[in-house]
Amino acid sequence: MKKGLLISLEGPDGSGKSSVLEALSNFFQENKQEVITTREPGGVPIAEAIRQIILDPKNTAMDEKTELLLYIASRRQHLAERVLPALDKGETIIMDRFIDSSVAYQGFGRGLTVEEINWLNHYATDGLKPDLTLYLDLDVEVGLARIAKSQHREADRLDRESLDWHERVRQGYLTILAAEPDRLVKIDASQPLDKVIADSLAVIQERFG
Amino acid sequence: MKKGLLISLEGPDGSGKSSVLEALSNFFQENKQEVITTREPGGVPIAEAIRQIILDPKNTAMDEKTELLLYIASRRQHLAERVLPALDKGETIIMDRFIDSSVAYQGFGRGLTVEEINWLNHYATDGLKPDLTLYLDLDVEVGLARIAKSQHREADRLDRESLDWHERVRQGYLTILAAEPDRLVKIDASQPLDKVIADSLAVIQERFG
Repeated sequence: MKKGLLISLEGPDGSGKSSVLEALSNFFQENKQEVITTREPGGVPIAEAIRQIILDPKNTAMDEKTELLLYIASRRQHLAERVLPALDKGETIIMDRFIDSSVAYQGFGRGLTVEEINWLNHYATDGLKPDLTLYLDLDVEVGLARIAKSQHREADRLDRESLDWHERVRQGYLTILAAEPDRLVKIDASQPLDKVIADSLAVIQERFG
Repeated sequence: MKKGLLISLEGPDGSGKSSVLEALSNFFQENKQEVITTREPGGVPIAEAIRQIILDPKNTAMDEKTELLLYIASRRQHLAERVLPALDKGETIIMDRFIDSSVAYQGFGRGLTVEEINWLNHYATDGLKPDLTLYLDLDVEVGLARIAKSQHREADRLDRESLDWHERVRQGYLTILAAEPDRLVKIDASQPLDKVIADSLAVIQERFG
């Protein structure tokens, strides 16, 4: 049924995900493959409406489980409406963040139960997992320093969270990596960006080239 | 931790739930108990916003799992923000529909997997179940005839669904009743309304009087 390739990029902000996404997209296009790059909620109106509730600053009474359930609902809609149809047509999808972000950020970072997040991810995706996940691993202090230096974006709420929180998120990713070494490949994102991109492309070429 | 009493009313539209709700509320008030009657999303703004997405007629692309996840998210927020704090204060809560409606309507009626709905209900409620659920059981054709005759409400989308669908929902309720005979009590809602109310009050008095 699923004929296309699903690749996800994971890692902290400041790790170079956007640049890697673009490079991977170019690679597949040069190889004459239909490729879609997307990031939840991905312009799917129902998923966008769900995100608006999550992000609405008025919603200070939001319970943590409610928030997770809304992220999962948004994921489901994006998947059902956009990702699955594209995969069925044989297109390649590259996603900027996916199931592992929920586990790393809301599970390890915020303390929601990882097994329950795994269950919810499985429910939302019908058990679909990426064929490959590139995890752009970055020392926490290096990542925060990069973000602070960047002219391109404002520090957001997450950036201001404690170093400790970011460290827990990183340990979350490393835990997933250890549990699923065939699906996740770690890229050293502390390197110069062109080297991060080259390493990422090398993995893609080795797997799918 | 939970000090109050949680009672839910279940059954099809037209079974007399609203009248029973009012009678039960009066009963507890006469017995000098703080009582809250509520129905999801219960005036909780985040839960209301979630319901608006579900009910928005523009959202024809809504996936069935997305819809269920949104109902569950709305339930979680209503519970966390309104129901749990009231129970902690020792108040009695009477809910017009709760966890069993999802199982009966979306599980048995619509065909989503009941085990998964049970899991999601458990996640949303931290495993909290009503101390008592009055299930107002009604022959499907009698119920639909009552609704059609009623001057007080328009037939809605659900009313127009097939008899078969309503029959599946009823079988769903009867299945839950068989599985949890201590929690659910069946009331014969085909009787005249004053008898339905009297039977309901008799159960309450026997359990909590």
